[in-house]
Formats: sequence, structure tokens, C-alpha cells
Amino acid sequence: MTPARIEELRDFYLRELTEDTIPFWITHGLDREHGGLLDFLDREGRPVSTDKGGWIQGRFTWVLSRLIEAYGTEARSEWREAAKSCADFVRDKVLAGPGGRAYFELTREGKPLVLRRYLFSETFAIIGLAQYAKASGDPGYLRKALETLEVFYSNRGKLAPKIDPLTRSLRGHSETMILINVHQELRDVLMQDDPVAAAGQTSRIDAQIEELFRYFVKPERRVLLETVNYDGSMAEGLEGTCVNPGHAIETAWFLMEEGRWRGDLALVERALPLLEWSLERGWDREQGGLFSFVDLEGRTPAQVEWDMKYWWPHCEATYACLLAWALTGQARWERWFETLHAYTWSRFPDPVHGEWFGYLRRDGSVANDYKGNHYKGAFHVPRFELYAGLLLDAIAARGRGFDALSGPDVLRRLAKGNP
Amino acid sequence: MTPARIEELRDFYLRELTEDTIPFWITHGLDREHGGLLDFLDREGRPVSTDKGGWIQGRFTWVLSRLIEAYGTEARSEWREAAKSCADFVRDKVLAGPGGRAYFELTREGKPLVLRRYLFSETFAIIGLAQYAKASGDPGYLRKALETLEVFYSNRGKLAPKIDPLTRSLRGHSETMILINVHQELRDVLMQDDPVAAAGQTSRIDAQIEELFRYFVKPERRVLLETVNYDGSMAEGLEGTCVNPGHAIETAWFLMEEGRWRGDLALVERALPLLEWSLERGWDREQGGLFSFVDLEGRTPAQVEWDMKYWWPHCEATYACLLAWALTGQARWERWFETLHAYTWSRFPDPVHGEWFGYLRRDGSVANDYKGNHYKGAFHVPRFELYAGLLLDAIAARGRGFDALSGPDVLRRLAKGNP
Repeated sequence: MTPARIEELRDFYLRELTEDTIPFWITHGLDREHGGLLDFLDREGRPVSTDKGGWIQGRFTWVLSRLIEAYGTEARSEWREAAKSCADFVRDKVLAGPGGRAYFELTREGKPLVLRRYLFSETFAIIGLAQYAKASGDPGYLRKALETLEVFYSNRGKLAPKIDPLTRSLRGHSETMILINVHQELRDVLMQDDPVAAAGQTSRIDAQIEELFRYFVKPERRVLLETVNYDGSMAEGLEGTCVNPGHAIETAWFLMEEGRWRGDLALVERALPLLEWSLERGWDREQGGLFSFVDLEGRTPAQVEWDMKYWWPHCEATYACLLAWALTGQARWERWFETLHAYTWSRFPDPVHGEWFGYLRRDGSVANDYKGNHYKGAFHVPRFELYAGLLLDAIAARGRGFDALSGPDVLRRLAKGNP
Repeated sequence: MTPARIEELRDFYLRELTEDTIPFWITHGLDREHGGLLDFLDREGRPVSTDKGGWIQGRFTWVLSRLIEAYGTEARSEWREAAKSCADFVRDKVLAGPGGRAYFELTREGKPLVLRRYLFSETFAIIGLAQYAKASGDPGYLRKALETLEVFYSNRGKLAPKIDPLTRSLRGHSETMILINVHQELRDVLMQDDPVAAAGQTSRIDAQIEELFRYFVKPERRVLLETVNYDGSMAEGLEGTCVNPGHAIETAWFLMEEGRWRGDLALVERALPLLEWSLERGWDREQGGLFSFVDLEGRTPAQVEWDMKYWWPHCEATYACLLAWALTGQARWERWFETLHAYTWSRFPDPVHGEWFGYLRRDGSVANDYKGNHYKGAFHVPRFELYAGLLLDAIAARGRGFDALSGPDVLRRLAKGNP
């Protein structure tokens, strides 16, 4: 990649982020009456439901807080106002569940609608509030994040699973992967004022990485599995052979970021096969794009929508390939990045009303033109744009390669804002 | 429709039923070791999971019992063996849940995997065991069906709903519609030996029909809604405007059958608009077939797979139009029947390995080529083929028209077996 291409891409990603994605959500989604974000928006940005997803409140808080940090003194006041609105909605409404649990769905006013038997809403609240503590300088949000972490661990493994555990005990990859990210975010916030607590996060990341490779990664099958038996053996039926390429790729770049932060190239190299296998299995050689699900044995997956192209795996994969190229210099990752970048940006953005479509048919045509629902909201797209922009900016400033790009502080701010 | 066309169609439907659908499932699905039906079969009929769906055990018991009744002395011994195997699996394994509840998913051996907070598994167990009592002559199965009916009613409205009822109380159309069918099936079995109990079923059907028209049918909007607020007003967001054409059509023909059984033409005429509205909204004018979901306001439905063509709405709609034509003689229903018959039989059957594909993309191409999963199994297709065959046979024997085709005993047996 030439320096000119790197700068062109950096400017492109940051412009898309700050001129399209963030303004779309703040203009159409921010609830100026009740706080938080209206996430169920149609193509033009009009709410088709005023119910609020619990996930996105924490996730958008996180996005805005990271954005504010990256832009430093150049951060816009509307980003700060929106971040406070979402953070307070998380603290006061989302986390008002029994025992401090997080609701998955709420009314516009914040009354509880759905409490799930999974703990993902909690994890997004944690990363949002923790980063907002840094963005706002108010440690009260960090305390609430850490309290919610305790809620997470005290409930983990204790909520009634869907499948009777006396008959069959399973492990899901999702909880392991999300914990890696949760502890990375907490460490990032704790690092400056509480090095002991920050080190504790690193230990917990180690435990999750160990779990990941022990149970879910099967090098002999070239796969990271979504669901395994409790002992790590293959689970029954199509659930046991289900591969979610986007999910595995997201885990791969969490690991690459961890290796980069630690200055541990070996960890980066453990992550690369997960990316490679997932692209091998997940890429649609006939029509381009990543399948949503594939089967380890090459059979049709159980999910009837398996061949649809979802927006988020394309965010994860494009960033993962950019990062792999930046850290290793291997030309194949640059080629994959350019392939993914071209597919993604030619298919998902809405040229008329801005932001992205989320759900394409196999052939790339738009199946559902909403800009948000309780899964797609202001998270994967802006995180991708911000992280790609920050990484490209770091490369432009420091050069490519593991040594130039590793260490805890490399990515914190855009170079231009922090000479 | 000419007499020759009626006989041709009758022979076609009954041949598909007895030479393709039923043999496919008995050959590939019947579990000769543990009893019951393996329902998760690939295109060729090989199990891709040996877990068993709870729904299909009761449903296939029902199909086989109705088939045995229809063919009388010509019923094949393998149908009887399969019916007993499934009925016993329902009684001994599916209904072994807490307090007599039914499991939604079990292992091959019948160990519990999933117990849901909905009562549909119970309803399919009830209709299966009740009809098997008649097919086998063993009243023990009817007693178990009636006990399970009590389990249903004692749990109805008491299982924790997904949405917090203190914030929002909703009604779903599914429970109302399935109860109409459950009580129809029980009445059919109770009719000969216990006229008082049979009359009790009719009262309960009346109550459900009243509920249906009071809460879910909105003539001013030309729609039957899936979900409404507890008082019948429009529910929030896309859930409130969700239309499931296949579901509404299934309800329409349950009502038409009820009108026909009672000799009540007015009830048939109340049902016809539900069919008409659903075809108007649900038919894909560009590429043919019925959408899985549409939105009352013409927006994109929330379901990302909304435009896929599923097998079961095509079964329900084709039969509903045949029945509407048979009872009213209106030419538009004949035209709709021929349109649906042509679309359905040219797209869904697998010409190589038999039985039907379940899930097509909008353009009619096959998205998922499995013959069964825990939703698609040996139910909608054989029920459709049997009911269409019986109706066409009754028309061939007695002529078309409400008077010729109404009354409790018209459909019970194929004319040729019961001169």
C-alpha cells in the first residue's frame, strides 16, 4: 500500500465516520426527550418502533466515548451531549434490572420490556460506561461499570440455560470472546490510575484466551466452533458444526489487538489462522461477500438465512485484514483487505439516505432496508470506521510493522490531534 | 373445474401423499430403535441431527391416524406401526415434562432438551393422541389427550411471557387459532361415544372464534393481525403491524371447515375475507408465491427473511382456495387455487429425492434443501395432500356446493373405501 493510498483510506474512513455515520445516528436516533438512542429506524431514519434495544445504548455510549477520546480537543460538543445522554440512560434505565442486571429491550421512556437469560446486554453497558468515565472524567460511571462486571460474574453460568443441563451441557464461544473485549476495555480505562486493577484485567484476558483455544479452536479441522460440548468435544447435529465466520473473525482481531498491545507477536500469529480459516470457509466465491453461517462439513447450515450477507461480518473482516497486514506486512492480507473493502463499500452504504443497509440477499441486493433494529445499530459500522481510521493514521505517522504499531498507547489518539 | 380435472387432481394429491410423502418419512425418519420420528433430515433423508422435535411427534401421529381413518381397511400396516411408534413416544417421552407439560426438543432416546414457555407442543400432542385413540381403538390415548388439554388450560396465561406484562400486555393470534383446531379434533374423536363432551368442544370453539374476531380481525384495515395489545388495540412498532399471510389463511380454512361441519354458511362467509385479504397482501406480484411476512403499512417487515417463500403457507393457501371454491362455487377461488397449485408444485417438490424443500428465496431458488428440521417435518405437506384428496374425492362423489359438502361426516373416509 502506497503512502498516498494509506492517507486516502484514512481520510475516507474518518470522513465516513464523522460526516455520515455519527451525524445520521445523532440526528435521527438521539432521543432528546427521554435520553438514549432510538435504534429501530427505517431507511430515512424515521423510527418504526420507539422501543429501545438494551445492547445499543451501551454500545453507542462506547462508540461516542472512543470518538471523543480520538479527537481530543477537536471532539464536537454534540458528541459529548449524545454520549452523556446514552450513558445516563444505560446507568438509570438499562441497568435497572433485578440485582443490577441489564434489560435487553425497554420502552422509549425506559420501562422494562425484555430481560434475557444471556448476559450480553450487561457487557455492552460495562464497556460503554467505562469508556464514558474516561471521556467525561467522571469516575462514577467507572464504578457503575465495575459493579456491573460483578453482576455479570455472579450470574455467569447460573441463569437457566435453554437446553436442559442434566441432559446436555454446552459451551458457547460468544461469552468467551466478549469477555476478552470487556477486559480489554476496562484495562484501557483503569490503566492510568490503577495499574494493579489493570493488571487484573490482563489476567482475566489470559483466562479467556486459554478457554478459547482449549475448547473452541480446532486446528486439525481448521475451524473456530461456535458451540461445543462442555468438555470441548463436538456437539450434536448442525449446532456442533455451525461456523459463524464474522464472529470468528471478530475474535481474531480482538486477539491481534491483544498481541499488539502486549508487544507479543506470537499472540498475533496465533490469531491469524482463525482469520484465514474463516475467510476460506466464509467467502462466497460465486457472488462475493461473507456468508452469515457455514457448516464445517460443507452441508447446508440449519439457519434458513445462512447465505444472506450481513453488514457486521464485513466490518469485522475488513478491519481484521487491515490489521493483519499492518502488523505482519504479508501481501495476502493487503489483497484480502482491498477485496473486502471494495465489496463492503460498494454494497452496504445507502447512497440516498446515508448510513448502511444491514441485510443483503446472497446476490447483494437489499433484503431489508432498515438502518437499525435491536441488533443493527450505531456500533459495528462506526467502530470499524474509527478503528480503521486510527490504524491508518498510526501507519501514516509511524510506519507499518509490528514494532511501529505495538504498545498500549499507539492507538489512543489521532496523530493530527496529538503531535 | 371439470369432473375430469377434479378426478385428476384427487388422484394426484393422494398419490403424492401415499407414494411420496408418507413413504419418505416412514423410510427415512421413523426411529425403529427408540420410537418416534427423526425429523432433522437432509435432502436425501439422512439425519443431520438425531435430536427430535417435540412438535412433529404429535403432528405425525395425527397425520398417520387421519390417514388410517381415511383409507379404512385399505390402510397399510406400516402406517399403523408408525402411528403407534409416534403415539407412544408422545405419551411416554414428549409429555414427560413437569406437571405433564410437553418438551419442545428431546434427544433421540427421549431425554429432555428444551421446554419452552409456549404451549404449542402440548396442542400437537393432544390432537395426535386423540386421533390415534380413534385409529387404534384404544381409549387410553384419548384419556391422555384430555389430561394434556387440562395441562394446557391450567398453564395458559401463567407461563412467564417474554415481554414484561407490567409494562406491556399483548395477545398473540397463534394460541387462539390453534385452540380452534384442537377442539375440532377432540370433538371429532368424542362425537361418537360422548356427545355431551363433543358439544363442550363446540362451545370452546365458539369462545375462540369470538376472541379471534374481537381482538385480531380488523375489517376496516382488511387484516388479521398476529399480535395486538391485550385490549385488541394496535401494538407498538413493527410487531403491531406484522402480517403473517400463511397463518391468517390457515385460520381462515379452520373457520371454513367449522362452518361446513356445522352447516353454517354464514361462518364460511366470515372466513372468506381473511383469505382474500391475506392473498392480496401476501402474494408476490413480481415473482410469484407468498411472502412469509408483510407489513400492514407496506413497510419492510422486521424479519430479515420476510420475502422468502416457505412451504407451509403454500400448503395452507392452496387448500384454503380449493375449499373456498368447493363451498361457494366462486370462480375467483378456482383461479387462485390453480395459481397456487401451479406455483407450489413447480417449486417445492424435490424431483430427485422426493418430498419437498421448505425454504426458497424470493425468486423461487432453494435456500435450504433439508427435508426437515424442528419446524418443517411430516405435517403441513401430508395434511394438505390428505385434505385436498379427501375434499376432491367428496366433490367427485357428491358434487360441489355447500349443501353437498357440509355436515360432520362428509370428509371422514375416501369415497372409494366407503361406498
